Amino acid sequence: MRAAIFRGGDLVVDTIPDPLLGKGQVLVRTRACGICGSDLHAAKHAQEFAELSARSGGRFGMPADRDVVFGHEFVGEVVANGPGTEGRFMPGTLVTSMPLTIRGSTVQGIGYNPEVPGAFAEYMPLAERMLLPLPEGMEPDHAAMVEPMAVGLHAVNFGHITEADVPLVIGCGPVGLAVIAALRLRGAGPIIASDYSPARRALAERMGATTVVDPAKDSPYAALEAAVTPAGFDASRYAQLFGQGPRRRPAIVFECVGIPGVLQQIMEGAPAGARVVVVGVCMQPDRIEPFFGIVKQISLQFVLAYTPEEFRETLGHIAAGRMDVAPLVTGRTGLDGVRQAFQDLANPERHAKILVEPWR
Amino acid sequence: MRAAIFRGGDLVVDTIPDPLLGKGQVLVRTRACGICGSDLHAAKHAQEFAELSARSGGRFGMPADRDVVFGHEFVGEVVANGPGTEGRFMPGTLVTSMPLTIRGSTVQGIGYNPEVPGAFAEYMPLAERMLLPLPEGMEPDHAAMVEPMAVGLHAVNFGHITEADVPLVIGCGPVGLAVIAALRLRGAGPIIASDYSPARRALAERMGATTVVDPAKDSPYAALEAAVTPAGFDASRYAQLFGQGPRRRPAIVFECVGIPGVLQQIMEGAPAGARVVVVGVCMQPDRIEPFFGIVKQISLQFVLAYTPEEFRETLGHIAAGRMDVAPLVTGRTGLDGVRQAFQDLANPERHAKILVEPWR
Repeated sequence: MRAAIFRGGDLVVDTIPDPLLGKGQVLVRTRACGICGSDLHAAKHAQEFAELSARSGGRFGMPADRDVVFGHEFVGEVVANGPGTEGRFMPGTLVTSMPLTIRGSTVQGIGYNPEVPGAFAEYMPLAERMLLPLPEGMEPDHAAMVEPMAVGLHAVNFGHITEADVPLVIGCGPVGLAVIAALRLRGAGPIIASDYSPARRALAERMGATTVVDPAKDSPYAALEAAVTPAGFDASRYAQLFGQGPRRRPAIVFECVGIPGVLQQIMEGAPAGARVVVVGVCMQPDRIEPFFGIVKQISLQFVLAYTPEEFRETLGHIAAGRMDVAPLVTGRTGLDGVRQAFQDLANPERHAKILVEPWR
Repeated sequence: MRAAIFRGGDLVVDTIPDPLLGKGQVLVRTRACGICGSDLHAAKHAQEFAELSARSGGRFGMPADRDVVFGHEFVGEVVANGPGTEGRFMPGTLVTSMPLTIRGSTVQGIGYNPEVPGAFAEYMPLAERMLLPLPEGMEPDHAAMVEPMAVGLHAVNFGHITEADVPLVIGCGPVGLAVIAALRLRGAGPIIASDYSPARRALAERMGATTVVDPAKDSPYAALEAAVTPAGFDASRYAQLFGQGPRRRPAIVFECVGIPGVLQQIMEGAPAGARVVVVGVCMQPDRIEPFFGIVKQISLQFVLAYTPEEFRETLGHIAAGRMDVAPLVTGRTGLDGVRQAFQDLANPERHAKILVEPWR
């Protein structure tokens, strides 16, 4: 089959063997797969990503010296049921899945794993046990957005959001936009979002942000401060010590950028008591000044991915239109265009999510 | 009155004016006051501490260019009630207080504040409203330990400890020992504690640690791993994904060292899902690799001080013998010995807490 392969630091299209199905596996023809920011990072910093993966126990990562087929945000169509399957899905059934497959009792990651092709290839060997059929009437390609949107739902769940909280989302790439959608779903408001890109701020509003900030002009932390502080609030230590007067609302900040320096900026800018959920995947060492966290009693909750329940719940939200993912899909390409798409995604004015369609 | 004064980078004994009482203030003769690790740090890195304080909004800190009388862990005796007090405390009453005083409606910190002498002086102007009388029969000097022990109770409260949790305490200085005492009080077990010093490990056991580790010989993280992992635990992703077999207990790590590098060490060493409570006060910039936090979904909760309720509760625990602070007091000195005591505290084999007795 044809695949876009990350090989020797470049993305090339080549033919690789069709997947051989193991026990419990189903052959799925890829219909569409989103390009993730982690794919861009892995391609640009393959060596560092590989080293970090190895040092952190290999839960999430890849080796640097082998061919890898990326692609972990996918929707596909069942082609054939392999040995030991229960035949739960007829050929032609549209399905999605968490980016994991199971061979016997071995779980394998999909997307950075040289042992299993990711979805930038024509076919995938998926686990029958993990397949989720698309609900009736769902726009099929929207199922490729389940994976990134589930990341947002997971982050918001880890934040234990209540209606009292005022959230600020730093960075409105696909991760930040997914967080905003999940915040709206959970009834949060106001929702403040910050991004340098006008196109991204417009998308943030589409997804549910009620206040958008251009950090080149205004401080997102000033906007947060204003939103959490009620009229008549007395900031004096006396009032605070004796619980006098109206109280501030709790602040929660979602870090959705993933580059060094942002955590420290948040710790300096956020109000005392802020909870910070770190959703952006920063793969470089970072510098923080713990003193700011200490004097404000800030918490940093690092999160990754989602649970199977959150993945399934997200599929339901998208199918029912409670999460509108259509505005996020800004481009499509065949395998031959993957290399160019990786370049194009550097421009936030043009793109949020590009879907790869290997059948093109 | 006589005071040990931090002046021009040195600790000198000199005479300063007796405190003038403002509205609502009580004159208290200092009976004893502990030397805190933050005092040592402030003396050694006055300029950096001052700069950090200013940059972080001045919630906790001091200017570098003025005389300051340290001392914020104190017990004293009421001498006189000032203007506008209710006369709730007869002269001779033994009292403690959070290290804050109130003049009119202005709250002032005690211990790093050039406007108010701390307890390394003969007298203090305390707020009647904040004074706590010592319970009947309490060993008076133990009330000087309320402040540092309340820090431990606060940290454990922020950790939302349940009986399922397995705590690991990194660093068994006064902060770590206070955390251990609070963990025992809250019914946690086992309690693992790590320190390079044999004397500190012995104190940790006195305070309630059930396993002590010398990190020069053994990994505290291996001890934690062993303690959270039940017999028959299956670490495979398959078992984890489908919730099969016994589960690990939740891990909670208390960072009680406060020097750069420890947070990263914890993020690398702790089990997935660990909550980290950062109690040590690191005043230098620190380097972390967020990737480790991300792949393990770790949380870092920075904490500071205590609430008024926690301070009061701690006084009750010490008075009733539920927190045994006697082993922690390893030395006593008059004002003339403060400078030497600051040196002596560098040796963990000899000292945990030295009490300053300004009346000597």
